[in-house]
Amino acid sequence: MSKKAWGGRFATELNETALRFSASVDVDKRLYPQDIRGSIAHVRMLAAQGILESAEAEKIEKGLNDVLARIEAGEFEWRVDREDVHMNIESALTEAIGPVGGKLHTARSRNDQVATDMRLWVRDAIDDTVTRLDRFLGVLVIRAEGTVSVLMPGYTHLQRAQPIRLAHHLMAWVEGLERDRARLLDARKRVNESPLGSAALASTTFPLDRERTAKELGFDRPLRNSLDATADRDFLLEVLSVLSILSVHLCRIAEELVLWSSQEFGFIEMSDAVTTGSSIMPQKKNPDMAELVRGKTGRVIGNLVNLLVTTKALPLAYNRDLQEDKRPVFDAFDTVRDSIDILALCLAGTNFRDDRMRAALADGFLDATEIADFLAARGMPFREAHHVSGRLVSRAIREGKTLPEFSLDELREESELFDESIHEALDMEIAVERRNVYGGPARARVEAAIREERATLEARGIDLALLSEETGAQPVIRYEDEG
Amino acid sequence: MSKKAWGGRFATELNETALRFSASVDVDKRLYPQDIRGSIAHVRMLAAQGILESAEAEKIEKGLNDVLARIEAGEFEWRVDREDVHMNIESALTEAIGPVGGKLHTARSRNDQVATDMRLWVRDAIDDTVTRLDRFLGVLVIRAEGTVSVLMPGYTHLQRAQPIRLAHHLMAWVEGLERDRARLLDARKRVNESPLGSAALASTTFPLDRERTAKELGFDRPLRNSLDATADRDFLLEVLSVLSILSVHLCRIAEELVLWSSQEFGFIEMSDAVTTGSSIMPQKKNPDMAELVRGKTGRVIGNLVNLLVTTKALPLAYNRDLQEDKRPVFDAFDTVRDSIDILALCLAGTNFRDDRMRAALADGFLDATEIADFLAARGMPFREAHHVSGRLVSRAIREGKTLPEFSLDELREESELFDESIHEALDMEIAVERRNVYGGPARARVEAAIREERATLEARGIDLALLSEETGAQPVIRYEDEG
Amino acid sequence: MSKKAWGGRFATELNETALRFSASVDVDKRLYPQDIRGSIAHVRMLAAQGILESAEAEKIEKGLNDVLARIEAGEFEWRVDREDVHMNIESALTEAIGPVGGKLHTARSRNDQVATDMRLWVRDAIDDTVTRLDRFLGVLVIRAEGTVSVLMPGYTHLQRAQPIRLAHHLMAWVEGLERDRARLLDARKRVNESPLGSAALASTTFPLDRERTAKELGFDRPLRNSLDATADRDFLLEVLSVLSILSVHLCRIAEELVLWSSQEFGFIEMSDAVTTGSSIMPQKKNPDMAELVRGKTGRVIGNLVNLLVTTKALPLAYNRDLQEDKRPVFDAFDTVRDSIDILALCLAGTNFRDDRMRAALADGFLDATEIADFLAARGMPFREAHHVSGRLVSRAIREGKTLPEFSLDELREESELFDESIHEALDMEIAVERRNVYGGPARARVEAAIREERATLEARGIDLALLSEETGAQPVIRYEDEG
Amino acid sequence: MSKKAWGGRFATELNETALRFSASVDVDKRLYPQDIRGSIAHVRMLAAQGILESAEAEKIEKGLNDVLARIEAGEFEWRVDREDVHMNIESALTEAIGPVGGKLHTARSRNDQVATDMRLWVRDAIDDTVTRLDRFLGVLVIRAEGTVSVLMPGYTHLQRAQPIRLAHHLMAWVEGLERDRARLLDARKRVNESPLGSAALASTTFPLDRERTAKELGFDRPLRNSLDATADRDFLLEVLSVLSILSVHLCRIAEELVLWSSQEFGFIEMSDAVTTGSSIMPQKKNPDMAELVRGKTGRVIGNLVNLLVTTKALPLAYNRDLQEDKRPVFDAFDTVRDSIDILALCLAGTNFRDDRMRAALADGFLDATEIADFLAARGMPFREAHHVSGRLVSRAIREGKTLPEFSLDELREESELFDESIHEALDMEIAVERRNVYGGPARARVEAAIREERATLEARGIDLALLSEETGAQPVIRYEDEG
Repeated sequence: MSKKAWGGRFATELNETALRFSASVDVDKRLYPQDIRGSIAHVRMLAAQGILESAEAEKIEKGLNDVLARIEAGEFEWRVDREDVHMNIESALTEAIGPVGGKLHTARSRNDQVATDMRLWVRDAIDDTVTRLDRFLGVLVIRAEGTVSVLMPGYTHLQRAQPIRLAHHLMAWVEGLERDRARLLDARKRVNESPLGSAALASTTFPLDRERTAKELGFDRPLRNSLDATADRDFLLEVLSVLSILSVHLCRIAEELVLWSSQEFGFIEMSDAVTTGSSIMPQKKNPDMAELVRGKTGRVIGNLVNLLVTTKALPLAYNRDLQEDKRPVFDAFDTVRDSIDILALCLAGTNFRDDRMRAALADGFLDATEIADFLAARGMPFREAHHVSGRLVSRAIREGKTLPEFSLDELREESELFDESIHEALDMEIAVERRNVYGGPARARVEAAIREERATLEARGIDLALLSEETGAQPVIRYEDEG
Repeated sequence: MSKKAWGGRFATELNETALRFSASVDVDKRLYPQDIRGSIAHVRMLAAQGILESAEAEKIEKGLNDVLARIEAGEFEWRVDREDVHMNIESALTEAIGPVGGKLHTARSRNDQVATDMRLWVRDAIDDTVTRLDRFLGVLVIRAEGTVSVLMPGYTHLQRAQPIRLAHHLMAWVEGLERDRARLLDARKRVNESPLGSAALASTTFPLDRERTAKELGFDRPLRNSLDATADRDFLLEVLSVLSILSVHLCRIAEELVLWSSQEFGFIEMSDAVTTGSSIMPQKKNPDMAELVRGKTGRVIGNLVNLLVTTKALPLAYNRDLQEDKRPVFDAFDTVRDSIDILALCLAGTNFRDDRMRAALADGFLDATEIADFLAARGMPFREAHHVSGRLVSRAIREGKTLPEFSLDELREESELFDESIHEALDMEIAVERRNVYGGPARARVEAAIREERATLEARGIDLALLSEETGAQPVIRYEDEG
Repeated sequence: MSKKAWGGRFATELNETALRFSASVDVDKRLYPQDIRGSIAHVRMLAAQGILESAEAEKIEKGLNDVLARIEAGEFEWRVDREDVHMNIESALTEAIGPVGGKLHTARSRNDQVATDMRLWVRDAIDDTVTRLDRFLGVLVIRAEGTVSVLMPGYTHLQRAQPIRLAHHLMAWVEGLERDRARLLDARKRVNESPLGSAALASTTFPLDRERTAKELGFDRPLRNSLDATADRDFLLEVLSVLSILSVHLCRIAEELVLWSSQEFGFIEMSDAVTTGSSIMPQKKNPDMAELVRGKTGRVIGNLVNLLVTTKALPLAYNRDLQEDKRPVFDAFDTVRDSIDILALCLAGTNFRDDRMRAALADGFLDATEIADFLAARGMPFREAHHVSGRLVSRAIREGKTLPEFSLDELREESELFDESIHEALDMEIAVERRNVYGGPARARVEAAIREERATLEARGIDLALLSEETGAQPVIRYEDEG
Repeated sequence: MSKKAWGGRFATELNETALRFSASVDVDKRLYPQDIRGSIAHVRMLAAQGILESAEAEKIEKGLNDVLARIEAGEFEWRVDREDVHMNIESALTEAIGPVGGKLHTARSRNDQVATDMRLWVRDAIDDTVTRLDRFLGVLVIRAEGTVSVLMPGYTHLQRAQPIRLAHHLMAWVEGLERDRARLLDARKRVNESPLGSAALASTTFPLDRERTAKELGFDRPLRNSLDATADRDFLLEVLSVLSILSVHLCRIAEELVLWSSQEFGFIEMSDAVTTGSSIMPQKKNPDMAELVRGKTGRVIGNLVNLLVTTKALPLAYNRDLQEDKRPVFDAFDTVRDSIDILALCLAGTNFRDDRMRAALADGFLDATEIADFLAARGMPFREAHHVSGRLVSRAIREGKTLPEFSLDELREESELFDESIHEALDMEIAVERRNVYGGPARARVEAAIREERATLEARGIDLALLSEETGAQPVIRYEDEG
């Protein structure tokens, strides 16, 4: 007869290949702290409900703590023939404290146990990710504070469009990341409910107190339906979605770091500490960290697709397919957290090249909108003003000029509405300041946005001065000639 | 010179092939109500800020309302050479009211305009989806109320596991759908912010009042950064994620309807009104609606992947790639809403076969857990009790018996702990009632869950009596012999 | 009783909502030429086998041709209540020729019919896509022929790496597209097999000649198993995979066009005919076509994921889920074909800026590898030579020099192996020519590659002179000063 | 100065976090056999071309073989600070044989090196997968040979449709898997080309003989363009696509095993060696292996999406993002190969329940098509015949009869065309035999298909007798009463 926990009715043991194929301990052993924590809550409740003797429960709890200590000391042998993290721990417990260990599993199934473990793990992972995000946001705020005076071209279609402030660009990144943070916390609400006590699918005949275990484990409440609690993985799909969207944000930041590092843009110089060279080309200084962050986006999205496909069309309740939920979730969190940290590291030490950004403003007719706005403000319908400005750009290209180089007479050939104040309007510094709308790049607007974000982060307990010290992020930019 | 709105600096017109490739009006014309609504809010604000004369603004507003009326009357000609919904409407406006129409676009760009339109459209689509979900939830509650007494096998691994109530199974579906609803509303918070006034990327030199337009359009607030407001589509990624997760739920329900409709299960008979036959096999009655819902899950997930890939690695700010955001979002909402409605229709009229479900309980040793629980409750460690029960199952299979057919003496050959009360424990009705844990299938628990959901729906304004009338969903089951 | 083709056993008609939800004619009417072609082959075979009278078959064939003529003349009314393309055509046939029309469906099911239609459609779509690819390849060859003399930086990590020829870069694009073409043709082998005669799932009791219909429809052979023939869609998954990979290639080309169009790179100027402007910024000239091609990659990949998810976990044989196979396949082919055409159009007319590319070579130490190779060729282990060159680059950056500006004495401070020939080695033209390895950028190698591709295309019947005329692709580059 | 291979121009070492983030040795060390094999081919060619001294080359080759031996003996220390498999091996080589080891990298870059390694690895993995597939096909052929006489319901829409043979169903699986095999071999053509000699992106200034290394490594030819050779990963996308489609096939087989294992179907009993029980429900015997195969489909598809996203929009040539190509490819092959093996194991030992399948034929009006065909063969238009049969089915349901239970008189109430031979037509055995069309389920057709496949497998060198012995797959079915 099979010696497995479920082996009573089986004449032969599981085939070796099948055992290896189905064992999950290599992946799920990572859940050991959550598994033991959940078991202790369960056994305490069993005792409180009179299902176990107090002495039994204490013996089991002590035994579990001993197993925990052995695992953390690296003295625990994980065995594939014990299938998963749950059976590895329970078997070790029973070896240590005798048959009473078998009572731990009273009124519980691996189905509610693993769902509980995953929810605890994900809750911790969300909290950790939020903390890292806050640190990254802190770095961005520090760098934005130092670059309010730096003008750069704003782009659309990767074409120079209108002048903005570098700090305004950095604060655009902040906005997306703040929404990612809010999404993580919204998802957390749906993660933080307790499946424990649902047993295999239909709860149990023992008089459990699910409120009690939920509370002890820090869950907001027990889940309301035992089939749903053991069989649904929508909380993981949601978390993977949120991480995928966050990854797209990180990827877009990374893409800009790669672009800005190119000789063509030359807007930034990343520090030697986060760039690598070529084994064949001695001059190379590659933005590898940004490229890897960009590349890993595929990994996170792939993990989301993995679980969407895996859960598609599964009938209630638990199916073994669900065992495949752990790898993509672990991998997505690992990838995203590393990517956040590495981007924070990169941004902390990046040298922004004010000179290159300003030079880029001079070329590309970023002042063409000023001309159209100038005319529209003087009563010309905007569509017509746009055409006038477009014709002037064409002429400037033909004549090899910039727009400020046109004389007032030349301008008035196109429209009588031009007057002397037009040349002031074409100054980039003034052009930016005139965009003094909520959410715009004028100094006051950008500074207000930064101040608001700083206050938000401080209210969350982020010490920006300490962060600056730890990461080397400085609220100043270094210029090329300073080396 | 090009006659396009942007044609000032262009020597030649856009190539015909390129025009067709890049025009989006076939897809985005659907945004016309939002586009006009946004334009009216914009023009009113321009007047309030003194940027337009009041008379001009009124003329434009009236012109826009005329265009709206023509569109809704089917008298509007959508022109591909006018590229998109925005230019179609604006051009028609200018044709109708003259050059003043050109002033509508003052201090606005198609970049903030289309972002505004999409947010308004998605907000409406969320609200509509939530309403449909609530109706579907109502149908499920009504059917659950009528099936509390129906016992059926609960499954894990698609193997009969333990007895439950049909209503408990239906209420498991409710749980997932309620979380989908909560996710939609969480996403709505991030949808409902106003990009208007961000212009092309850097706001504008005109003194806009973004608070005012945000408020007039029902947005919670203006977005805080003009680059972010025009370039990010994370709100669409979030919505597509939520719809994908919801689709997985619908798909899993559909899978069960397909299984239950099979001759092998025979648990349900769907009405003629929602099943179809075969052009070749006269006896067929196929659960096509459920199959289509299941199949369309791929469509929704495909739309999510579409937009994740499209937005991957885009630098700030707007890129034309973003034009591709509309089709997947429209298609995902259309698909999900139709799928919700069709499942509500199916479930309203499905005949649940109590006889078949009960018959299924008799076969498959669903009472084996009762034996193990019985022994564990009498002090045997659960792991050992499980083995005893497993051995009894093996013996029953060998001897062609069910477990209740074992005599007490036969049972006591395996354990002295058995006594006469064991046979009562094996009764399925009693077995279900003994699962009297929060979230479990005992009658009181299931009725409490249904009552709670009914109250929730009523608090949302769903009239369940009316719904029952409209959909034909009855809180009773019809039996085969009533046919 | 239901009037549907399958309505015999149904008491009531399909619900209106359900009808609209399940009808596919809006999408699948596009299959009408294939459907009629398949029906004619089927009916001819039925007559040849004596299953139908010759006169009946002729009447049906004539009737089908009449329907075809009406469809192509725009005089056919597609009716949703007739569900799909098959029933629309058959019903119209029967209306026209009377009850004999009903014999068309003898020994056939919609299951083998739609599989046949799709295979015929996809076969045509593959052939058409291959033709368009060949034209695009022709444009690339023509442009490569004209740009062999143009040097540009080769990039890795988007950092300038080593000098290459523009033609070498264009020919790298050709390589990937040629593999896509080969993949399409490999997929075609598996598309071009006939399901016809498999009927609903189990063939039929009529003595069909499947070889005959297969041959008449140009299929290579009948499929070997009737369940497989009606239920598998792997041929569509393969085609969608191939189109997705092709899309990634198109996307990567598009990405480079966007980069090269930026003011920062300035390597190309796309013609007015394929660029668009901004409704707000008069100076803008945006590479919209390239951006849209890039963005549409997500659409094609989304379509692949759609069908992978839809077909996941379906049991044999036909399930209604499979109806959802058409939209993603049609959309993927439409998208890819338009994208190929538009890129061909863009590349035909793009002005390559030799001056900007050459200027880019001077900055970025692209000659650093030359120094390392120089030393390695004189016996220094490459790893050491690399370090010497790296130190020289660092010194050059510090001193604001380029490498050719170092004197021989300065160089010999780093290594005695330097001699006077080093300065020649640093000339970019010479550096490229020294990369005279198969597959490398030396003139002879690039010209050989172009010649080989030209011969390949000509062997396929592409007339490059005609293509040049039609597309305006010229084997010359135009310089900036020529306007 | 940095001590990295590329460290010449770097003032400081790579940050520790960045090092861990970017190091790939944990994943890519698996490429060591390919890496060393490629290096030996390279160094031999360098010697043959006079670029290295023969003695140097021999020393390097011997050193590489020593490293290989150490790795295989488990005595090699993989170091994260050496980044990847390439630098780990080269560094160990140089430590062992001194500075001459540095010459190995002459005229090579990690960019062409890793592309070479991956192509060699994937080629081997394809060959191995094909071998496993052939064994699985062999098991299916053996089981089909033993089940030609077993009748079962064929399904569409998971509704019983028409009678078929179990062997016909098993051979439908064979068809899909044979196409997967063909796709793998088509992909292999495009994998088996050599990038070696392309160096970083632009080949090299050394006079390499790329033909020679290509030939030595078993490649069909060198790739034609150095940029393409180092930067494209379409060969991996193709392989992942093929594996995804194969996974969908495996998943569909697994789905049927799960369905057939249910108590409701009861068509199969999988052996104890490949099923597992429940830790809480003693009676359970779960088809876990099939569920896991089904669940892992998501993993393979996720890997495909991962690489599609990762490679989207990358400009030429190599970008560090491409480092992320290995994990999904390794994982997809591992997953697919294990899944093939486990399904072969399952199918070899599964007990097909002839009794249950035959019983299922009796219920569900699978003979309704026979009636329609009977009438159509006697001249009634098929559509009309279908309606007659449908009406008879409705009547049979109402009267609680099966179709054979109708008397001839009763039948003739519906149509005069019925005669005595109708009752023979309704016999399931005869009904199957009448489906004697190529690809159909008649005995002769199924046996021919099996014979053809057996011959194909034998021609590939599969010894079916040996396979039968090894796997226990028997060309007989065991019946329930045999235990």
